[in-house]
Amino acid sequence: MPGYGARVSERKLIVVSNRGPLSFDRDASGVRVARRGAGGLATALRGLVAHADVTWIASAMTEEDRAVAAEQRLVDGGEHGVPCRLRLLAHEPEAYRRYYEDVSNATLWFLLHYLFGLGSEPELGPSFREAWDDGYARVNTTFARAVLEELDHAPEAAVLFQDYHLFLAPAVVRDRRPDARLNHFVHVPWPQSEYWHVLPERMRQALHEGLAANDVVGFHTERWRRNFEQSCSAFGVAPRASSVNPIGIDPAEFDRLGESDAVVAEEERLLADRPELLVVRVDRTDPSKNIVRGFHAFALMLEQHPELLGRVGMLALLDPSRQSLPQYTAYVEAIEEAVRDVNERFGRDGWQPLVLHVADNFPQSVAAYKQFDVLFVNAVFDGLNLVAKEAPLVNRRDGVVVLSENAGAFEELRPWVVGVNPFDIAGQAAALHEALTMPPAERRRRRTAIEAHVRSHDIAGWTAAQLAELDRPPSTIPSR
Amino acid sequence: MPGYGARVSERKLIVVSNRGPLSFDRDASGVRVARRGAGGLATALRGLVAHADVTWIASAMTEEDRAVAAEQRLVDGGEHGVPCRLRLLAHEPEAYRRYYEDVSNATLWFLLHYLFGLGSEPELGPSFREAWDDGYARVNTTFARAVLEELDHAPEAAVLFQDYHLFLAPAVVRDRRPDARLNHFVHVPWPQSEYWHVLPERMRQALHEGLAANDVVGFHTERWRRNFEQSCSAFGVAPRASSVNPIGIDPAEFDRLGESDAVVAEEERLLADRPELLVVRVDRTDPSKNIVRGFHAFALMLEQHPELLGRVGMLALLDPSRQSLPQYTAYVEAIEEAVRDVNERFGRDGWQPLVLHVADNFPQSVAAYKQFDVLFVNAVFDGLNLVAKEAPLVNRRDGVVVLSENAGAFEELRPWVVGVNPFDIAGQAAALHEALTMPPAERRRRRTAIEAHVRSHDIAGWTAAQLAELDRPPSTIPSR
Repeated sequence: MPGYGARVSERKLIVVSNRGPLSFDRDASGVRVARRGAGGLATALRGLVAHADVTWIASAMTEEDRAVAAEQRLVDGGEHGVPCRLRLLAHEPEAYRRYYEDVSNATLWFLLHYLFGLGSEPELGPSFREAWDDGYARVNTTFARAVLEELDHAPEAAVLFQDYHLFLAPAVVRDRRPDARLNHFVHVPWPQSEYWHVLPERMRQALHEGLAANDVVGFHTERWRRNFEQSCSAFGVAPRASSVNPIGIDPAEFDRLGESDAVVAEEERLLADRPELLVVRVDRTDPSKNIVRGFHAFALMLEQHPELLGRVGMLALLDPSRQSLPQYTAYVEAIEEAVRDVNERFGRDGWQPLVLHVADNFPQSVAAYKQFDVLFVNAVFDGLNLVAKEAPLVNRRDGVVVLSENAGAFEELRPWVVGVNPFDIAGQAAALHEALTMPPAERRRRRTAIEAHVRSHDIAGWTAAQLAELDRPPSTIPSR
Repeated sequence: MPGYGARVSERKLIVVSNRGPLSFDRDASGVRVARRGAGGLATALRGLVAHADVTWIASAMTEEDRAVAAEQRLVDGGEHGVPCRLRLLAHEPEAYRRYYEDVSNATLWFLLHYLFGLGSEPELGPSFREAWDDGYARVNTTFARAVLEELDHAPEAAVLFQDYHLFLAPAVVRDRRPDARLNHFVHVPWPQSEYWHVLPERMRQALHEGLAANDVVGFHTERWRRNFEQSCSAFGVAPRASSVNPIGIDPAEFDRLGESDAVVAEEERLLADRPELLVVRVDRTDPSKNIVRGFHAFALMLEQHPELLGRVGMLALLDPSRQSLPQYTAYVEAIEEAVRDVNERFGRDGWQPLVLHVADNFPQSVAAYKQFDVLFVNAVFDGLNLVAKEAPLVNRRDGVVVLSENAGAFEELRPWVVGVNPFDIAGQAAALHEALTMPPAERRRRRTAIEAHVRSHDIAGWTAAQLAELDRPPSTIPSR
């Protein structure tokens, strides 16, 4: 039986994430088609598939996913370019909505990124208790049961839980399988103990105990890992081990993408009315990304440096996100209003300093990655921020990265970026100006240093480290 | 020369607080009159005056204060019932406004109580930098210079700084007087290091270094003290010492007040239409007090327990606070709207479940203290919360205290209160019901236990502990 010392290619893994690597649909003629999942996490985890024997458990997202789940326990992903066995879980729709929207996105996401204005939000009424018990806890239990079943088929498999949708599942698995190898990777920031008081005691306790049931809990930065140890300690929970392993990207993929027809076509469109100096931001329309303050900082920079009027433009490429949540639709409105305000104040003779595209258009983003003079990432809090790694890699102008001190990537890229406090508009305006006026040699020195770091700390390294972690001897701490 | 071993009566103190124990005005006939300051802090600190030789440095608040300050360096407070030398500082009005409103109240208060919705607030633009440098830092320097002058007159005096208005002053004094005895008491919560990232690095660093220049920094609870040590450690600042000393009240004062004509008159008015079961809350109209969520919890309790309709009423006595800040006027509007909503939903036949008085009427508050069946204190975060100590002391009905787990007083009173999470409306509704239906013997047991605790941990004990702390040998850590 392959054990912890097994060769990588023989390693059996059970990957558990809310969103899977494949999703099914029907095309116009009614034929079932599979789509590979987009998003950083799905892409990153596909690296695991290439290096191990993977069973992947994920939620059924579409009607066709549910049909697939009803037909077969395990889907052969190899037929669709993802060589793993995929198990799709068809949750009860209302339970899933509560788990995904009410708890994961409308509550945990806001808690994990310090986004609540605690004077008035959240208001955790009876419906939240239902969302917790009949949504989040229930779906986590469904995931845990599926893991247990797969462990029945392959008792030696290691389980890799992903992210904040699955904080409770590990404890349920551990309870039945004291000796299972369970790892968890948290892709978001981890708040310190006081802020966890946003949740009633039994809930915050359950989340911490759920995660602590893993052998190792991984984070993108030492800062989030330290916060995790701190909050566990404050709540009397003893995690077995925690580790830091910032995720990387696939440089070859971005090298290819940069030369692809789709990106080159977008780049030509962009070049047709490129300003002399181009500031780019690429984000989901999420309050944690700090888009409105970013526009205000850009406006302040223009106000303080009128010599740049007409010479510098900002291009904001924003992927619409979570538009079923009112906070997110309101945020898109605030973004659009801020753009109008800035352009009314500073636009002239048909020239507008701020160009906004709200769309999911990755080739356009990569084209902007190639063309920026300044990349602006001013997130309120961010687990890592992959844009800060992707964009400098393909950039052709030795563009400068202005990066929030609260983005996980800041811990890695600090020596080569212009750091900003995300609440400090004046500081961000000054940083934008510093970046725009940086001497070419210094721009080159910094960008090439970032590129070298990103190439040498790529997704393959992250995957290898995740797998190597499984070779650490299981904790000697007795299971609870 | 009296040194650290001096008898209490000979001890020379320099008390430093933004608001002093006396303020001057002119009456209708133009004659100068002195008023003793209200507010928990001023009352508490008057205890110090009775036990030491005190010079008290405070801001001039009124026009007449400024006139007094121009006439004399030191005012003889003894003529006005406060036996100390009072030094009033007439700050430049715009600097004071920036220090008091823009920084202390609109920024530090929100930071210290976790009230910012970080997705959109604060926005620290150029005017905030001015408010910091030309307001908060400047007024702190003025305070520090006055302290240094008073130390020239009495080099052996110990300095007692108070609260969040004066976080920078101690370092300025320490710089010139490495051997001075400097203590600080922080009356508010202390956030953990992540939340301090709301301020740009130089500001959060200056605040921590300012406080760490004291020999001892005191807090109301171990929780805030631990957070202080944690954030200092995260920012590389080494405080000399920190201590916990929860403030108390003067039981004799409340015994007298309870029997006073003014309170008895208010109590008769209250009794005239007292519901069978009375829930009371007494607060400033501050978002940290969590008034709106409290009304929603009360409404939920009525919804879940229709048998209580017509039998239970809530009386909210709210002291209008900081109405020059837009967040505070908006909060009063939200309070009034919530009251209308609750009364529209549940009122009938002329009966209304929620009665709101927005006024500064302390006798009315004490009358309500005497009459409550349930005292409701659900603060988002609160340094201590004196109401939770004052009200049970004078209560005549063995009323039950429902208390936020995030109020400092919770650490002391936990065994005898019904604890609530301030964000959990469902939990608060359940707690109100539990308190309203608690058996009489249990109510009595708990209230008498709180009374005994409050009587044995009174303001005199706090004062004595503050003075005793000055007898600890000065830290051997070299000054910076």
